[in-house]
Amino acid sequence: MQFTTGIQKKERNAKEILGGELNGSTVELRGAVHALRDMGGITFLTLRLSDGAVQCVCAPGALPQGLEEECAISLTGTVRAEARAPGGYEVVARSLEILSAPAQGMPAPISKWKLNLNLDTELSLRPVTLRNLRTRSVFRIQEGLGRAFREFLTEEGFVEVHTPKIVHAGAEGGSNIFRLDYFGKKAFLAQSPQFYKQTMVGVFGRVFEVAPVFRAEKHATARHLNEYTSMDMEVGYIHSFYDLVELETGYLQYAFRLLARDYAGDLARLEIQLPDVSRIPVIRFQEVKELASQKYGRPIRDPHDLEPEEEANIGRYIQEEYGSDFVYVTHYPSKKRPFYAMDDPEDSRYTLSFDLLFRGMEVTTGGQRIHNYHRQVKKMEDRGMHPEEFQDYLAIHKYGMPPHGGLGIGLERLTMKLCNRENVREACLFPRDLNRLEP
Amino acid sequence: MQFTTGIQKKERNAKEILGGELNGSTVELRGAVHALRDMGGITFLTLRLSDGAVQCVCAPGALPQGLEEECAISLTGTVRAEARAPGGYEVVARSLEILSAPAQGMPAPISKWKLNLNLDTELSLRPVTLRNLRTRSVFRIQEGLGRAFREFLTEEGFVEVHTPKIVHAGAEGGSNIFRLDYFGKKAFLAQSPQFYKQTMVGVFGRVFEVAPVFRAEKHATARHLNEYTSMDMEVGYIHSFYDLVELETGYLQYAFRLLARDYAGDLARLEIQLPDVSRIPVIRFQEVKELASQKYGRPIRDPHDLEPEEEANIGRYIQEEYGSDFVYVTHYPSKKRPFYAMDDPEDSRYTLSFDLLFRGMEVTTGGQRIHNYHRQVKKMEDRGMHPEEFQDYLAIHKYGMPPHGGLGIGLERLTMKLCNRENVREACLFPRDLNRLEP
Repeated sequence: MQFTTGIQKKERNAKEILGGELNGSTVELRGAVHALRDMGGITFLTLRLSDGAVQCVCAPGALPQGLEEECAISLTGTVRAEARAPGGYEVVARSLEILSAPAQGMPAPISKWKLNLNLDTELSLRPVTLRNLRTRSVFRIQEGLGRAFREFLTEEGFVEVHTPKIVHAGAEGGSNIFRLDYFGKKAFLAQSPQFYKQTMVGVFGRVFEVAPVFRAEKHATARHLNEYTSMDMEVGYIHSFYDLVELETGYLQYAFRLLARDYAGDLARLEIQLPDVSRIPVIRFQEVKELASQKYGRPIRDPHDLEPEEEANIGRYIQEEYGSDFVYVTHYPSKKRPFYAMDDPEDSRYTLSFDLLFRGMEVTTGGQRIHNYHRQVKKMEDRGMHPEEFQDYLAIHKYGMPPHGGLGIGLERLTMKLCNRENVREACLFPRDLNRLEP
Repeated sequence: MQFTTGIQKKERNAKEILGGELNGSTVELRGAVHALRDMGGITFLTLRLSDGAVQCVCAPGALPQGLEEECAISLTGTVRAEARAPGGYEVVARSLEILSAPAQGMPAPISKWKLNLNLDTELSLRPVTLRNLRTRSVFRIQEGLGRAFREFLTEEGFVEVHTPKIVHAGAEGGSNIFRLDYFGKKAFLAQSPQFYKQTMVGVFGRVFEVAPVFRAEKHATARHLNEYTSMDMEVGYIHSFYDLVELETGYLQYAFRLLARDYAGDLARLEIQLPDVSRIPVIRFQEVKELASQKYGRPIRDPHDLEPEEEANIGRYIQEEYGSDFVYVTHYPSKKRPFYAMDDPEDSRYTLSFDLLFRGMEVTTGGQRIHNYHRQVKKMEDRGMHPEEFQDYLAIHKYGMPPHGGLGIGLERLTMKLCNRENVREACLFPRDLNRLEP
């Protein structure tokens, strides 16, 4: 009988080579040939590893027959400091083995610094254009943002949950919902984990989920996806909705510390300056709407919501007046918030809710929820809804819920704004929109 | 202007109280009244917190009007050692405030040690039955298993990815696929992230994803769900598929260490003994099939696959002969493995693949994939498939892929077997099956 004991050989990464601690050592590296440049007698080989790239120098005798870009190779060589090499170190190849070779040359110049393709072409070739180092770094940043969300909340005593994406009713209602046939029954794809995450507050007190959500929105804009990753938290025993604002700020601080520590190569490659989130302005919807309108001379057209251009102006206003890339806009009008939002007891035209804007774009919606059964039933009735259709949801109110609230962060939008991308599709590996269902 | 600075007040949890370091301190606890027992003059209040429960002792004067089970409360009191209290410590209440109260008494005895409901009733009342401490602990264990997967793989240099769940074609093919209308186009729900995770190996070398997958299987068994959480990894630059086996074993070792450290209360509540995974047997499909058949006198009916009863017998065999709860069964027949599985070069009737059985049930399927473009096209053609329908997928082979393989772990099945549950629905918060679409 053969046994496994869980022993792995660690693969070397770029951070170790470029960190300098291996200077003078012999290393074995396994990666893809990202670029090959023949400099007459000597060949520079850029080796693509999981976390970056390393320059390797090959004498003519070290180059096997058939070596080309996108070969997978194993390379053994010596690390040495070299000021002209990207990152300050290079590997002098001693031996090089081809593990596999492509069948065709690349359809796009992925080894270039910038791809310079139009977005539609880039997305259609995504399985290979993602191999470009700058394109790829966007998704390492995205990983860091997701990882920080979970690590921070785990430290804060939250429990992770997995809630169903095939549901029998939509949380937000409306027409923006995908329908499917479920063994002859009508079912929907979840627009958010709203009902379920509230339910789980009754169980664990504080919960989070990072999972896909689905919105059948029929408009194709630079800020909408029909499937995206939502980072949701729901928090029981809050004193007020400001607890949620503090939690999200704590998350952003944690995330940017983590990025600075573990993703420095990607930040540099994308020329990202991490925003200062030591303090973030918090301002009421009504107030900031008027301030931005006055300052930039744009009349208010929709008193109950923020138009995209208004969000942009508010972002600009906060940047100019307070030097912050972020702003919490609070107390949105009840009319535009869902039936589970708690109204402000001091003025029921508004809710105890907020959005977080990042450089003029909404990246989070959150707020306090109604926890009292009778109040929730009443608000549904006032809106012409039928409480009997929401029995499973209302069970949590009926059988006792703590004061609670929560928020959802659009991971792709947060990534997009942090990486200074113009279109949210650039921050999604394989975006889904009105016209795009593949790759 | 108001600002947020990200400062939170840490909520106290059960581990801190029962850990003993707060003995003699005054603490404020916020949680739900899980149980109330009037002992004549003194009342024992079991307070449910996110990670466990704490016994609180209340003199009559400390009990506010209207206090009942499932009230959300804030309680201030002094921690003291008390051998008769669960966990060895209790809190002597000094003041107690009701934050919210239920509108109705509970429909099930959730404060009992065991619910004693039939599973169908329990699942229909899931929003409240999950508040039972033992029921809930299953999902804290589940959190630990998922958290360990991500932490372990991040340390091993893997990158997390988010791949689409709405797809234009199914990875596994066949009829077990949910269809939906995508703006007038035919679309499907992803049965697995197979094509996408392989694609991302070309980008990052080593990737993982924890996300829902959807299977429209029409049979209702104790081991199938129509939506479940798949923990997927895909690994480039492997030397052989045994690298994957070692990685999964490393994961299990990491996970059980994490559970022992951070989830001890839940393990004790569920009376779970963590299995020994220091070494796990690895045996070929053909060999173990025959050994189990001989030992238990059950004739082999399907030579190409394992029937559930055969898996159970193999689990029993390995337990009896080698004392292991786990076994890797390798070299499954090509006929029953998908078109992307790499055949064994020494005998092409078999593949370089494996399943992991845990106490006689498959919890993982994995294996090496074909990375050569021409071989992949040939295998598709040999199976009567049309390579031109898989252009996006085949692009990765065409433009170069390293030797690679991967595996997928069913999180609910792993949780179910570890927690000694009989039905996989018990290890899913809100299960989806042939007949169940709510809650």
